[in-house]
Amino acid sequence: MTDAAYDVVGIGNAIVDIIARCDDAFLEKQGLAKGHMQLIDQAAAAALYDAVGPAVEISGGSAANTIAGVASFGGKAAYIGKVADDELGRIFAHDIKASGVSFETKPSQSDTPTARSIVLVTPDAERTMSTYLGISPELNSSEVDPDIIKKSRILYLEGYLFDAPQAKEAFRLAASVAKTAECQVALTLSDGFCVDRHRSEFLSFIKDDIDILFANESEILSLYETQSLQTAIEKISTDAKVAAITQSEKGSVIVSGSEKHEASAEPVAAVADTTGAGDLYAAGFLFGRARNMSLAQSAQLGHIAAAEIISHIGARPEASLRDLAAKHGIAFS
Amino acid sequence: MTDAAYDVVGIGNAIVDIIARCDDAFLEKQGLAKGHMQLIDQAAAAALYDAVGPAVEISGGSAANTIAGVASFGGKAAYIGKVADDELGRIFAHDIKASGVSFETKPSQSDTPTARSIVLVTPDAERTMSTYLGISPELNSSEVDPDIIKKSRILYLEGYLFDAPQAKEAFRLAASVAKTAECQVALTLSDGFCVDRHRSEFLSFIKDDIDILFANESEILSLYETQSLQTAIEKISTDAKVAAITQSEKGSVIVSGSEKHEASAEPVAAVADTTGAGDLYAAGFLFGRARNMSLAQSAQLGHIAAAEIISHIGARPEASLRDLAAKHGIAFS
Repeated sequence: MTDAAYDVVGIGNAIVDIIARCDDAFLEKQGLAKGHMQLIDQAAAAALYDAVGPAVEISGGSAANTIAGVASFGGKAAYIGKVADDELGRIFAHDIKASGVSFETKPSQSDTPTARSIVLVTPDAERTMSTYLGISPELNSSEVDPDIIKKSRILYLEGYLFDAPQAKEAFRLAASVAKTAECQVALTLSDGFCVDRHRSEFLSFIKDDIDILFANESEILSLYETQSLQTAIEKISTDAKVAAITQSEKGSVIVSGSEKHEASAEPVAAVADTTGAGDLYAAGFLFGRARNMSLAQSAQLGHIAAAEIISHIGARPEASLRDLAAKHGIAFS
Repeated sequence: MTDAAYDVVGIGNAIVDIIARCDDAFLEKQGLAKGHMQLIDQAAAAALYDAVGPAVEISGGSAANTIAGVASFGGKAAYIGKVADDELGRIFAHDIKASGVSFETKPSQSDTPTARSIVLVTPDAERTMSTYLGISPELNSSEVDPDIIKKSRILYLEGYLFDAPQAKEAFRLAASVAKTAECQVALTLSDGFCVDRHRSEFLSFIKDDIDILFANESEILSLYETQSLQTAIEKISTDAKVAAITQSEKGSVIVSGSEKHEASAEPVAAVADTTGAGDLYAAGFLFGRARNMSLAQSAQLGHIAAAEIISHIGARPEASLRDLAAKHGIAFS
């Protein structure tokens, strides 16, 4: 597909992150599982917000972070996701468009607000997220423009959307449209708890529809209900066409049938906030694949993007990923 | 006043900063004076926001940043300022209260939104601000609680409020209440252009009512319409009881009658964003004075706070200023 309008189109929960620092005792007091994402309702979000320290607001949303990363590599990118006609919705829309991403989903006119995630960063730079989804799960099939998908090289879907029945339908529709075109379908498992909630659906979706799967260790172990990473990797190498398993500072393993690559993480002087590490790894990997790079080189782009994002607060790139790739000797048109 | 409830109470424009990066060419194209603050209306703010890149939202407002800094030193602090009952207003209120500051001003119920400042940070870390004041100038005299001022050691006023007639009245009322109590009155000139708009009023206010004046070089030169810093410092040493003149990386000069101190700036490994440098210098200086420290030691606290704030994006402290002071061997109860 040489005349594709977009390298990658992403669908996900359109979220603004509210990022605050805390210590481990605060997480414990609030009953939050460190390193994970938990869904909370509006009242719980308000109560937690009251309890946290001074915060910073930065656009987030897993797939949206990835798509902003693709654009930062110089890729052509589009995003589909639901915000409300409120201040956080305007912030989300501004930031993703200002990143160079096409974003045409109309804001909802209902009273349900834009989604927000309270991201708590502990001194070890780990992030723990409590997300009130607001209007975002109300994304419906009519809002997924088939033309955008048909004009894209890769459709990228966020596992978190499995938590919302209506959004999940939109998701499945998008995947079926992609299969009628030369558009690959990529999925991230998003979170170990999320996998736990939807294990069998994820497995059949991976086997039937997914070309590229992203997962971290806890997600892939949860998917196969095993403690052995080796076992999980063997299973995913037959279940998925391509799977990229991220392992934080240990790098990533990419399997595709009998092919297996191990990629090293990029060194980072000081890790400030791990929020978005997986999202940005996906950005680099997807951009590489959309531009017909090898699995190994795509993974390297993923690690370059992940290293940039964990060096500062927030999950959107602050530096040009295209320039960073060039510094590593990776140039592209 | 040993039984004061507050070390410092501040009055100012309650603003959320929208911080984005840009290059010098963008400032020029937008007709923005680098390093200054310009007031814009709602339509201009919307147009400028559309033009800027991805942004980060962090509570700001000059006096509010200072007061958050006082609290970070472990000081007892209160803030008076006007927000709307909207998302940015809730963000502002959350952040200042979460900093440990008492903030009781009721949000407005009018449709005019909370103030926002579009802060553009150039690669040299200089910040250029375009501020839509929204509801903040509608702070009125009835919202200045005389009891809070009477219970404070220092009342801190932001020169920017001189741009709003109603707020300026509230300001003068606050100063007159302070004079009936053992509460010192401190003022920052805020901005060279702001001084230019209100020169004679500032001068008589300084002579009649002000105990501690803060100004940077461009502000003090503008106040006395001179190119000679020496001349300006001589004049302010007779006009103000205490004046602290900040000079960026060159440190600060503090004059009080015939007394004169020169204080060095704290070294910073990498300056990320100069937004809030003056505000946080004032925080350290005011906290020191409220705790009866010398002019020299108060200035050192100012430089410690300024160094923290310019090392990261945003004008609210990320580290405990109390801990930083302790690392410099300055402890207080």
